[in-house]
Amino acid sequence: MPYRGRFRLLGRTFLLWRSSCNSEKAKVNTHFIANITAGRNFSVNTALDMRFVQFTNKNGGPQHLGVQLKERGDIIAVSAVDSRIPNSLKKFLEGGDDLLKKAKRIVAEGRSITPAEDVNFLAPITRMDKLACIGLNYSGHCEEQGVPTPESPVVFSKFPSNIVGPTDNVILPSISEKVDWEAELAIVIGKRCKSISDKEAEDCIFGFTIAQDITARDWQKSKRNGGQFLLGKAMDTFCPLGPAVVTKESICDINNLTVKTWVNGDLKQNGNTSELIFKPHEIVAYISQFMTLLPGDVILTGTPAGVGFTRKPPEFLKRGDVLETEIGNLGRLRNKVL
Amino acid sequence: MPYRGRFRLLGRTFLLWRSSCNSEKAKVNTHFIANITAGRNFSVNTALDMRFVQFTNKNGGPQHLGVQLKERGDIIAVSAVDSRIPNSLKKFLEGGDDLLKKAKRIVAEGRSITPAEDVNFLAPITRMDKLACIGLNYSGHCEEQGVPTPESPVVFSKFPSNIVGPTDNVILPSISEKVDWEAELAIVIGKRCKSISDKEAEDCIFGFTIAQDITARDWQKSKRNGGQFLLGKAMDTFCPLGPAVVTKESICDINNLTVKTWVNGDLKQNGNTSELIFKPHEIVAYISQFMTLLPGDVILTGTPAGVGFTRKPPEFLKRGDVLETEIGNLGRLRNKVL
Repeated sequence: MPYRGRFRLLGRTFLLWRSSCNSEKAKVNTHFIANITAGRNFSVNTALDMRFVQFTNKNGGPQHLGVQLKERGDIIAVSAVDSRIPNSLKKFLEGGDDLLKKAKRIVAEGRSITPAEDVNFLAPITRMDKLACIGLNYSGHCEEQGVPTPESPVVFSKFPSNIVGPTDNVILPSISEKVDWEAELAIVIGKRCKSISDKEAEDCIFGFTIAQDITARDWQKSKRNGGQFLLGKAMDTFCPLGPAVVTKESICDINNLTVKTWVNGDLKQNGNTSELIFKPHEIVAYISQFMTLLPGDVILTGTPAGVGFTRKPPEFLKRGDVLETEIGNLGRLRNKVL
Repeated sequence: MPYRGRFRLLGRTFLLWRSSCNSEKAKVNTHFIANITAGRNFSVNTALDMRFVQFTNKNGGPQHLGVQLKERGDIIAVSAVDSRIPNSLKKFLEGGDDLLKKAKRIVAEGRSITPAEDVNFLAPITRMDKLACIGLNYSGHCEEQGVPTPESPVVFSKFPSNIVGPTDNVILPSISEKVDWEAELAIVIGKRCKSISDKEAEDCIFGFTIAQDITARDWQKSKRNGGQFLLGKAMDTFCPLGPAVVTKESICDINNLTVKTWVNGDLKQNGNTSELIFKPHEIVAYISQFMTLLPGDVILTGTPAGVGFTRKPPEFLKRGDVLETEIGNLGRLRNKVL
């Protein structure tokens, strides 16, 4: 729980934070608060835990870009406070570090706080250039299908318009009878990058979110589309995403997060990102050898064991099911199946 | 040659048109001119030949959306004349019929004409949701690979950021030694559509343009990416597009257009859209069974025989090559290979 309360100073409200994972961040926080109390110029704290969300107010109005103070916590509508901040996370990332500094300043000042219960959470990022996916990236998922682990990442894609929000419905298409779940950690790219090293890739990642890589197995795993996954992966509503894009600095250890799927309350997937064959920074570096990655691009990193089609007997989503997905403390998706 | 000159009436200049293909359009034109000369309210001519281009002036300045009067002809910068018209064709299409009517009116009035030699042509449409492709859609291309013709369209994809303009360079990536050409007719979607019939699909198509589906065969045709085409198809600069999006009404018979590729002046592909196994409206209807198509989506329809990798000996693009691509009277791409 990084959020610790607030205090007033020089006529303004400041939020007090404690970083959720390491002492280095806590030091920066201490320095930040010391600066304020000493009456020095306002100093932007680089160690804030930041959970970016896109939302509308339940009573209507336009989309806002907000920063959530903690999981399920209040939201600071940064695009409402400063009109120079776009209301879309993709455009915000395209704006670079200046916009991020502005947003951090607004968050630290604690202005325009909206209770979470007053908003509709949308997908936290949309309309990107690339919605790419990695296949067969957990050894358990390879084993349950009886296929060897790949020597390099297997990359395929969905379309951005397949994305729906964290509580939106997943619509079963009439042309499939084998719609399956795949909980996945999703990388969000923050900076343009091409042909970078594993080390440089860490700098290009802005944050992470949760995705369901919903899949029609009767189209993905058949010869119908010449062996190409696209049609089985890219149907409408096949990518629930959210609820927040959590900055990488806010996550203690990206390589040690639980990855869980429940269907109607039954735990179906229970993996951990520690099992990832190719780690997020390795995936980013790899894809960047082929193409320029752009701010807002999203890469799903693959799913652990426990999908439906390899169960005995196989299980698929049915109308009326409730699909829940949780990764570490990134949040939870809850999507009804219609 | 649809453009026939201009005349002045009531203090304004009007362009005279003759449709390039059928008598039905000529009738509408006659009716249109009769309306003007009778002093009636201005009537928008639905039969104009319209070639949409995105361009910048050679002396600098912002991107404009323009309508070219004929192949290699002058351009009317519709977004410069009316600020309500976006400077991006995708946003223009999202604006629906009202914007199209505005553009036609401006074209008929013949305002703000820029000579073609004064502009840099950009890709005519960019930043779409979907850049989809059809594989194995000419029997000759199936035969040259020794594979059967598919029973339904094989759909895969590139990324929008792979697109470059009609005279931009194609950059050979260091990770491939087998970069090949594929001339393709490209469909541009004009209206949102889902689960439509072949007949309804015709109404959803806005127009057509020319694409090169540049392909790294050593990544597409190997087991390296688990059989998924994406990495071999989606490298930077792998989709020259343009020079114009020609409205469907301006094309006499979309199913009878030559499709040609030259490398350094040598004719390599010489097909005809009459050979397409799945026709454009069938492709649109098919994909719409899986996902909602959106204004600005582009679908490459497959390539005829004559690609490089099936030649004996195989041929691939080399630094310094000049790649030219022409489809009927849609225009020509001319891309240097670097």
